[in-house]
Amino acid sequence: MAKFKLMNAKGTRDFLPEEGIDRQEVIETLRKIFERYGYSPLETPTIERFDVLSAKFAGGSEILKEIFRMKDQGGRELALRYDLTVPMCKVVGMNPNLPKPFKRYQIQPVWRDGPVKLGRYREFWQGDVDIVGTKNMLADAEILSITYEVFRTLGLDVAIRVNNRKLLNGILDYAGIKKNKMDAILSMDKLGKFGIKTVRDEMETKGFERKQIGNVMKIIKIKGKNRDVLKKAESMIKSGEGKEGVSELKELLGYCELMGFEIQIDISLARGLEYYTGPVYEVYLKKSKVKSAVAGGGRYDKMIGMFIGRGEYPATGISFGFEPMLEALKEKRRKKKKKTVTQILVIPIQTLKDSVKISKALRGLGIKTEIDLLGRGISNNLNYANSLGIPYVIFIGKQELARNKVKLRDMRSGKEKMLKLGEIPKNIG
Amino acid sequence: MAKFKLMNAKGTRDFLPEEGIDRQEVIETLRKIFERYGYSPLETPTIERFDVLSAKFAGGSEILKEIFRMKDQGGRELALRYDLTVPMCKVVGMNPNLPKPFKRYQIQPVWRDGPVKLGRYREFWQGDVDIVGTKNMLADAEILSITYEVFRTLGLDVAIRVNNRKLLNGILDYAGIKKNKMDAILSMDKLGKFGIKTVRDEMETKGFERKQIGNVMKIIKIKGKNRDVLKKAESMIKSGEGKEGVSELKELLGYCELMGFEIQIDISLARGLEYYTGPVYEVYLKKSKVKSAVAGGGRYDKMIGMFIGRGEYPATGISFGFEPMLEALKEKRRKKKKKTVTQILVIPIQTLKDSVKISKALRGLGIKTEIDLLGRGISNNLNYANSLGIPYVIFIGKQELARNKVKLRDMRSGKEKMLKLGEIPKNIG
Repeated sequence: MAKFKLMNAKGTRDFLPEEGIDRQEVIETLRKIFERYGYSPLETPTIERFDVLSAKFAGGSEILKEIFRMKDQGGRELALRYDLTVPMCKVVGMNPNLPKPFKRYQIQPVWRDGPVKLGRYREFWQGDVDIVGTKNMLADAEILSITYEVFRTLGLDVAIRVNNRKLLNGILDYAGIKKNKMDAILSMDKLGKFGIKTVRDEMETKGFERKQIGNVMKIIKIKGKNRDVLKKAESMIKSGEGKEGVSELKELLGYCELMGFEIQIDISLARGLEYYTGPVYEVYLKKSKVKSAVAGGGRYDKMIGMFIGRGEYPATGISFGFEPMLEALKEKRRKKKKKTVTQILVIPIQTLKDSVKISKALRGLGIKTEIDLLGRGISNNLNYANSLGIPYVIFIGKQELARNKVKLRDMRSGKEKMLKLGEIPKNIG
Repeated sequence: MAKFKLMNAKGTRDFLPEEGIDRQEVIETLRKIFERYGYSPLETPTIERFDVLSAKFAGGSEILKEIFRMKDQGGRELALRYDLTVPMCKVVGMNPNLPKPFKRYQIQPVWRDGPVKLGRYREFWQGDVDIVGTKNMLADAEILSITYEVFRTLGLDVAIRVNNRKLLNGILDYAGIKKNKMDAILSMDKLGKFGIKTVRDEMETKGFERKQIGNVMKIIKIKGKNRDVLKKAESMIKSGEGKEGVSELKELLGYCELMGFEIQIDISLARGLEYYTGPVYEVYLKKSKVKSAVAGGGRYDKMIGMFIGRGEYPATGISFGFEPMLEALKEKRRKKKKKTVTQILVIPIQTLKDSVKISKALRGLGIKTEIDLLGRGISNNLNYANSLGIPYVIFIGKQELARNKVKLRDMRSGKEKMLKLGEIPKNIG
């Protein structure tokens, strides 16, 4: 017997083919759409220097507690990356001659040594797409257009909610909250997940005044058509910053209309992170049990410059969350999960040499083809095909070879056809 | 100024788009060919329990020294995976009902806290493809067929060298080496990299007799056509195990000929790892400065069963090394590296709205399209395209719009054409 427990580290998972195939589809969809918009792949190491990941203006103290730390043999302090934003900032800082705008995407796992619960893991994937080097709202619209296309391609019905941090600041001014704006924003951020009561209670605990809280409640409840919401917000706002926020949202809305997709302006949308400076975005599924955001992001014009300690690097981007996306895809798909990529299993019946050649020919036609590697009988081969969900098998006997044909069997219907090799691609689907 | 040093952890690298694009091509090639043969994706976590990774019959003591270790907040002993074989064995052990053969591929990074030198890193990628559950030589032939196709597709000219551990044991019997066979094999393994003198010196140091060493030298020098080499080997071999090795190689050779690709039988090929039990493979570039193996593997019929402490799990597979493959691709490609995936940069000339729509249409045609996000003038846009190596730009002015056309400029030749949108795909290449 083995002297150790054969199990996974807490909060980590193996992805067997039945999950892997779905995951691969999401990755390919993201990659294809990102590249279609001229974003190029960036990969950064899993292991970074601890001082870089824990630097001021990086992830912040909440995340700091959850960093996986270690040392190398030389005693250097190292850590596993906990997001894809800080590593990108590092790359921008280390490569001062990158042409701007720098348009990159990054699809990699991240690690957080935090509590493990339903849908939360210690090792999980993110897919980020960002533009560094332009303040233009067209860039934000492009990020949202990508977002729209991703979910349309995956067949997931979503609402893309958009707000603006400048507008939010302006509205908080109206609510009489001049100081501790970020505290109020952090409380408002809990609206979607925990409801209005939590927001109120938390603000009370934080010591906001009754009237301030009442005003925030009023703001939170403003809903309606985009133009109407913007009009109401405009009526509350007096500060220059707030007005800038409204005009950014108007410009952004115009571009989205031009590009042919809908966004939903939601002035209660806060997004907790301190570093956002302009538009913020959050994407939710419309008809789904999955309640958490499937993507979220925004503009962060100051963060990179502060992090690397020089220059101006306006930036905007969004992060796609794999776990809720995969959960939603699982929900949508009623059909049985495939446990293999294989499309056809070739079953030789005393025709091994010819079957090897025919398998090669099928692969040449682009068909994912397996040949029996165990020398099994027909019924064992059929059981194997069934257990993996392989959709078709081909029988190759001497009779078939004499007629220059093979017998294709549809494993779902049980129907069989005698076919020439070249006829197979159009007979499988 | 930032209070930390903006640099990477020792032995790790960022892959900027110019490298990322090449890396992506290798990954896609591997994935496509693996799947064509009916292998499905498996992903295992970066973080594993230390007791699993350090178990007996796993990686061995050499690798143990180089494991990156850490603890989670609960004090659990964890480590980063150092190869893709041990995690696969873990998955097989934890999923006893996996249908056999289990055909999986896995393309992921691994970590080793070892010396860093030219071409050696602490974080590097492997691409493994394995079959678990069959002793059939057809499985080994399939692995080699995949290997052949990978390098053919990448345009790299390679020699696939093949030996058999059973045959090697038989030959060592002939050389008078009955004990410490593995010691001799480990020395022979240095032939390719360090030459014949190193093998001799090391065997002397290890205390092998003069005559034994002389016999090994004789064996090492046997070269020639596959059938001749096998004949010579056969003449030396008396043990049952050795004869089995020869007959396995003959069978394997037959399948490879049937599948239409060449292997090179090389009875000096040792491959250091102790766990191999049958055929071993190693792939080298024919005309290249890259001298290390670009892929290597073999059959390991006992390792999984011993590792998980139950059952019989015959297995065979190969591991592709990313670093030497990418090095070889870099060498082959004389052309300038692309720093972006973008195929066309759209330059609006006071036509922003129409240009946004045309960019969308180009993406719909499958073209990777960027639009100027900075509102730059023509010459700044051309500089940007040049700095990234974007091959084409499109000018969209009012004049062009009036004629329902756009102006396409080939950035390499400088030639310009007035085209309708639909004509663009066939005019870029």
